[in-house]
Amino acid sequence: MNLKVKLIGLEVGGKSIVILNKDDADDLGVHSSGRVTLHYGKKTLTAIINSTEKMIPKGCMGVCEEVRLALGLKDNVEVQVDAAKFPNSLQFIKSKLEGRKLNYDEIFTIVNDVVQGNLDESEIASFVAALNSKGMNLDEAASLSVAMYKTGKQLDLGKKIIVDKHSIGGCAGDKTSLLLVPIIAAVGLTIPKSSSRAITSAAGTADRAEVLMPVELNIDEMRAVVEKTNGCIVWGGSLDLAPADDIFIKVEYPLSIDPLLLPSIMSKKKAVGATHLVIDIPTGRGTKIKTIGDADLLAKDFIELGKVLDIQTQCAVTYGEQPIGHCIGPALEAREALEIIMRKNNVLDVTDKVTNIAAILMRMAGKDVKQNFAMNVIKTGKAEEKLREIIGAQGGNPQVQPEDIKIGDYGLDFCSSDKGVVMWINNTSVIEIARAAGAPKDKGAGIVMYKKIGHTVTKGEKLFTVYAEKVGKLERVKQLMDENNVFGVGEHRDMLIHEVKEMKMPSKMFMLDR
Amino acid sequence: MNLKVKLIGLEVGGKSIVILNKDDADDLGVHSSGRVTLHYGKKTLTAIINSTEKMIPKGCMGVCEEVRLALGLKDNVEVQVDAAKFPNSLQFIKSKLEGRKLNYDEIFTIVNDVVQGNLDESEIASFVAALNSKGMNLDEAASLSVAMYKTGKQLDLGKKIIVDKHSIGGCAGDKTSLLLVPIIAAVGLTIPKSSSRAITSAAGTADRAEVLMPVELNIDEMRAVVEKTNGCIVWGGSLDLAPADDIFIKVEYPLSIDPLLLPSIMSKKKAVGATHLVIDIPTGRGTKIKTIGDADLLAKDFIELGKVLDIQTQCAVTYGEQPIGHCIGPALEAREALEIIMRKNNVLDVTDKVTNIAAILMRMAGKDVKQNFAMNVIKTGKAEEKLREIIGAQGGNPQVQPEDIKIGDYGLDFCSSDKGVVMWINNTSVIEIARAAGAPKDKGAGIVMYKKIGHTVTKGEKLFTVYAEKVGKLERVKQLMDENNVFGVGEHRDMLIHEVKEMKMPSKMFMLDR
Repeated sequence: MNLKVKLIGLEVGGKSIVILNKDDADDLGVHSSGRVTLHYGKKTLTAIINSTEKMIPKGCMGVCEEVRLALGLKDNVEVQVDAAKFPNSLQFIKSKLEGRKLNYDEIFTIVNDVVQGNLDESEIASFVAALNSKGMNLDEAASLSVAMYKTGKQLDLGKKIIVDKHSIGGCAGDKTSLLLVPIIAAVGLTIPKSSSRAITSAAGTADRAEVLMPVELNIDEMRAVVEKTNGCIVWGGSLDLAPADDIFIKVEYPLSIDPLLLPSIMSKKKAVGATHLVIDIPTGRGTKIKTIGDADLLAKDFIELGKVLDIQTQCAVTYGEQPIGHCIGPALEAREALEIIMRKNNVLDVTDKVTNIAAILMRMAGKDVKQNFAMNVIKTGKAEEKLREIIGAQGGNPQVQPEDIKIGDYGLDFCSSDKGVVMWINNTSVIEIARAAGAPKDKGAGIVMYKKIGHTVTKGEKLFTVYAEKVGKLERVKQLMDENNVFGVGEHRDMLIHEVKEMKMPSKMFMLDR
Repeated sequence: MNLKVKLIGLEVGGKSIVILNKDDADDLGVHSSGRVTLHYGKKTLTAIINSTEKMIPKGCMGVCEEVRLALGLKDNVEVQVDAAKFPNSLQFIKSKLEGRKLNYDEIFTIVNDVVQGNLDESEIASFVAALNSKGMNLDEAASLSVAMYKTGKQLDLGKKIIVDKHSIGGCAGDKTSLLLVPIIAAVGLTIPKSSSRAITSAAGTADRAEVLMPVELNIDEMRAVVEKTNGCIVWGGSLDLAPADDIFIKVEYPLSIDPLLLPSIMSKKKAVGATHLVIDIPTGRGTKIKTIGDADLLAKDFIELGKVLDIQTQCAVTYGEQPIGHCIGPALEAREALEIIMRKNNVLDVTDKVTNIAAILMRMAGKDVKQNFAMNVIKTGKAEEKLREIIGAQGGNPQVQPEDIKIGDYGLDFCSSDKGVVMWINNTSVIEIARAAGAPKDKGAGIVMYKKIGHTVTKGEKLFTVYAEKVGKLERVKQLMDENNVFGVGEHRDMLIHEVKEMKMPSKMFMLDR
């Protein structure tokens, strides 16, 4: 049938959606969530149907921005509309729901339909739920990784060895990449580091790096920086590497599930051409991986998947029982990293972690070195020099000093109500407080911690300060502080953690950031 | 923060959705699919977030019709917006994805959030996918049934015995309910029959009944009809019984999965107060349940679930290898049923099925009768009298005659290209052809079959006629006839069914109609 176009001026997240009057939909024999083929001039497009009884009159069709642009439609033009079949990928998603294994062609079809906007959220969510419930074998994980990077852009540097590092995240204050990239690039290895912004955490590497330099580079600009300096620290979001991932994340987020963790990470590494990769797995309560046993199992999965994808992969299981360094929040962390690389501040846990991982990467790339070699790259100032070179190449101020970095004007101190030793730090509360203060959006918001696990504390001694750019944000911080114990200070642990009564709602925090 | 309302004039299927500028969303620390609380005047509402970079400027909030109505908003008014937590039901959905069993409170919370518009499609789809992948035990099925009926309207007739019948569907031409309801009501039993329209089939009972009488009654009108006549045949969609089901169906449809089959059916029976229930399970190739073994397993599940819900349940496993009777399509089926009940036409398979099920229901309700007793209710004209009474009570013409029923003006005959015996009839093709001809939307569209399984056919003899209201629809019918074998006529079967080469896309038809 022919229907008259009504532009509704709505973007629907990359999907091709049309709204039909229920009467017309019945005439076509189609329903909401079904599909129609649109013919206009010489162009053809398959679109997802929403049907309505009121909004769109009979004989008309509501058209979202995506469809308008794809077909070049104007208000009131007539479009030929026919019932169409569901895309094949739905059959494959159903197979997975039933527990069948999917082959590469099937997985590629699904991922490509996700990227092309041919599947709606409920269909994508079913796929993610099926992966979560039924799991995937190594072949499927490899197929997903390949399909995800092949449906996006790729960086081809034409080098024999390209190293990369990724942290699965979950540990507050982890500014490792800001230091690792310049160290690695300074010794002549190529490290095209793309990183993410915070979703559920207080800062992502891209948020931290952005305090020092622009990070929203496109893939050509990224290539230019890497060719000039051997390294870069850019935001993955503007590179269009593995675009399916951003769509999958949107449905994973409300459900706090992440079955795509491995393929998502590996697809992005494949997309930048990494040949040697270290995966950092922070391990401890309050981070994603709670036990060393679980970390080792995950490490094995990464290494196996790396083999299939032809990326030599090692993992570093690292201590994640408390935040790393003293600072949490984009600006505070960038400042701490800059002070460390400038040898103005020696933060032992940060440098220990960075130099360990740097040495692993160097050894993987064929250099016979130990941790101390990486430490010397900092000590000799070569790392600082390289960081400033990268900052300049990405369009930042290469002369930037720690005191140039703006921290929130409003501070709030928290002191210990007990004396004793810091027994534990509640990482989840730390992140929640930093976010309540405005991080990651307000770059100057965050936390400076004066005490860490094992430190002795006197009653009334300052434990940490929360900074905010907007004074109003500190209200919520105060409230959170009343509701939560952030620091456990004492000489012994209470043995009862808490009581579980009927219908207790577990308040687990989920970290989607990868 | 305060945001200025921009009405977008869009209905979003009962959900509370607001569109935020990405910058404002970042400021609130929320993301697409997250939640915000809206305060306006004395009203408060939690809404699902969509975020956009372009469509809605910073400081404004796009508001769908559902939110506008709930809060009484106007364009440009200011609303206070705060970050909110995800609803608890997401935690329960996640539990199910992980394979945990859910208790009644958890299931009620999920179903209630579905009905209240607090969950978006991807979240609902994850729940349906989890049920499909992880299954549910009897307790969970019962909890779902109860939660689904308690979140909708209920019919309270105040009777001790209320009988009901339901077919799980899948068999074309099944006009059983049109005959069964008057037979049962004629013998003094109460049968408040609600039925569905076709989703994937050629006609639902509501579509067939609508040819004879109005079926879109509300629950008070339904009660009045039943109190007057002992029975009714109305569309369930206008009664608001178990409204969650319509929402679940929308996400089941593209994926061709139906984990909610049992709770969905039983919730609707519970909502009308049924005490005695027969479930018809048509069994055969081309219908939902292919083998008698599968049918018996399903029957057992229905009976067990009935016990928990305090509905005495029996099942009738019926022959579903071919369409029932000779007619397919709303008007053709209504006419066939009317002719049978008027004793103008004796269609053996139809009357055999109807009277068997009627006798089962009567025995369950305490009458010591056999199939013949039910047959006599037709033969004595009591069934016809009761049907006309119900038609009148529902607002139709009680004098309606078979020749009053309008069949499509355009007919297309199909003849056998072979001589022999009808070995099989492809039910899926039959449904597809009837739908292509315009059924169920065009009530006069459908198929009249002259031959059924076991009948002898000469070469060139007429097998069936396809009727359509619009001549253009017959083009697609011709094309389908060229692509499909509807009748298998021969003396023996070819042993090779078909070859399976790599990446063969199975073209299974799925029947969502319950």
